[in-house]
This record gives sequence, C-alpha cells and structure tokens, in this order.
Amino acid sequence: MAGSDEGTVRYAAAEDTAAIGRLLHEFNREFGEPAPPPGWLATRVGQLLQHGDTVVLLAGNGPDGLAVLRFRMAIWTEGLEAYLAELYVVPGLRRQGLGRALMTAVMEVCRQRGADTISIEVDEPDVGARRLYESFGFTNREGSEGPLMFVYERDV
Amino acid sequence: MAGSDEGTVRYAAAEDTAAIGRLLHEFNREFGEPAPPPGWLATRVGQLLQHGDTVVLLAGNGPDGLAVLRFRMAIWTEGLEAYLAELYVVPGLRRQGLGRALMTAVMEVCRQRGADTISIEVDEPDVGARRLYESFGFTNREGSEGPLMFVYERDV
Repeated sequence: MAGSDEGTVRYAAAEDTAAIGRLLHEFNREFGEPAPPPGWLATRVGQLLQHGDTVVLLAGNGPDGLAVLRFRMAIWTEGLEAYLAELYVVPGLRRQGLGRALMTAVMEVCRQRGADTISIEVDEPDVGARRLYESFGFTNREGSEGPLMFVYERDV
Repeated sequence: MAGSDEGTVRYAAAEDTAAIGRLLHEFNREFGEPAPPPGWLATRVGQLLQHGDTVVLLAGNGPDGLAVLRFRMAIWTEGLEAYLAELYVVPGLRRQGLGRALMTAVMEVCRQRGADTISIEVDEPDVGARRLYESFGFTNREGSEGPLMFVYERDV
C-alpha cells in the first residue's frame, strides 16, 4: 500500500471479490455463524465496493487475510466515522504478523479518508483480537478509563 | 407516524434541524461529552438528512426527545443494517413513555426501510437505557445467551 511499510497488504479491487467471498465464508464457518455461500458473498462485496462506503484490504498472496472497513459521515464531527466490520486471517497463517499488517493499513486508510473515529465490535472471549486492538490504541472503556461500552443488538 | 399508535413521534424534516441541534447539544452537555454548538449540529443534521442514510425521529411538542438512526447496506444479508446512534429525552420529561414511544417508532422505521439487524452502543452504567433496550428484545450477548459484546474504539 502507498505509504505503508507492510508490503503484504493491498486494496481489494473488483477482480478480488471471488477470493473475498471465500475468505468471508470460511471466517463465519470457523466461528459457527450463518455463512452465505462464497458466490453470494462475492456478489455482495462487489456491490459494497461499487457503492463506495466500503474498503476491503487484503493480506498475503492467497489472499490469506482481509479487513473490511465501512465509512460514513460522522454526527459530532466534520469528518467520517469508520467501522472495522471484519478482520480475518486464515488459521494456518496466524501469529505471523498478518493481523498487525492489516491493522496498520486500516489506520492508514482511516487517516487518508478523513475518519475522525473508528470502532470495532468484539466478543469478550476473543482475547487475541482484543489484545491486537488494544495494542493499536483501541479501548472498550468510555474515555479510555471509564465504564465498559457494550454493543446491544437484535434482528429486526 | 404512519402505522404507529404512538401519536407523539414523527419524522424530522429540514425545518426541524435547529431544534435537533439544540437537543443534541443538551444531550452531550448533560453527559459531559464534547458538544459542538447547536447551530453547527443543526447544519450537520441537515447534511445527514439530505444524504439519505439518516432518519431522525422526534417525540413531543418541544420537541422533547429524539432518536437518530443510520442505515447502510449489510454485508451478510441482502437488506440494510441499522444503527441507533442517539436516543435522548429531555431530563424534565423522563419516565413518561417518550423513550418507549421513540423505540417503538425506531423498530417500525427499521422494518419499513428493510433493515435486517439493528445495533446500539451503550455504556455499562446506563442501566435505564439498557433496561429499555432489553425490553425491546436487544441483547449485549452474542446469540442472546453467549459472551458479552464490547465496543472498541479510538480517535484516528
């Protein structure tokens, strides 16, 4: 990526959607979540990339990992608010720095796009992910030392 | 609102942005957060309403409360994902059902717009808000009985 010293991370383009669909499918299968077929996900990612509010970053030659970022206008500031929707590295290549390289690129893309804040949703037992995010300056406490911040959600 | 039996809740329009700016300003002042001036917030809300990804609902004649909803294309399903960015009722009119009326309208708007999921960020000590959301079927546990879901965030 331009400006990054992590040579393994690049922006995904339209021709990467099939690979992205496979990675997202494997991601949700690994964590026991409902996983639409890879082809469906590829089409959906193509729509999101075309819409322009989504950036997908790819790590490794497989590709072996990805980050999915969403952007929208912030309410309280003039810039954008970023949301790291997905971060995944294939099981066989973990603990080799791909996650760190992706997160470094995530922060760079946020700065380039003019994001003022970035948020992530993480389950309590995902200790590896939480440690990674904390090492990048993220906190799950209001004002960094205040109360815990929860995600509440439901299907509509 | 069409289809709602909560007569006090209505969609905000362009002429409501000044009142929305005042409510958002009071909201953040009450909770000790940085609060841009009401006029700045009014302009910003006008931009968000025009952009089309944001719906503001108003309760009461003041208006005395508001809900700010954001929508975007979901990744894992064909519909939209909704995010309840702000929910506020002025201090003097709490515990009179305005929050419930707003939440009833929030869920109706989500169904009308074709949202598949809705999420909210809530601080742990906001017991009143958490109880309200839980009474509307929201949970801060993965799969409703699994681990806690945290928000991690940082400034960019």
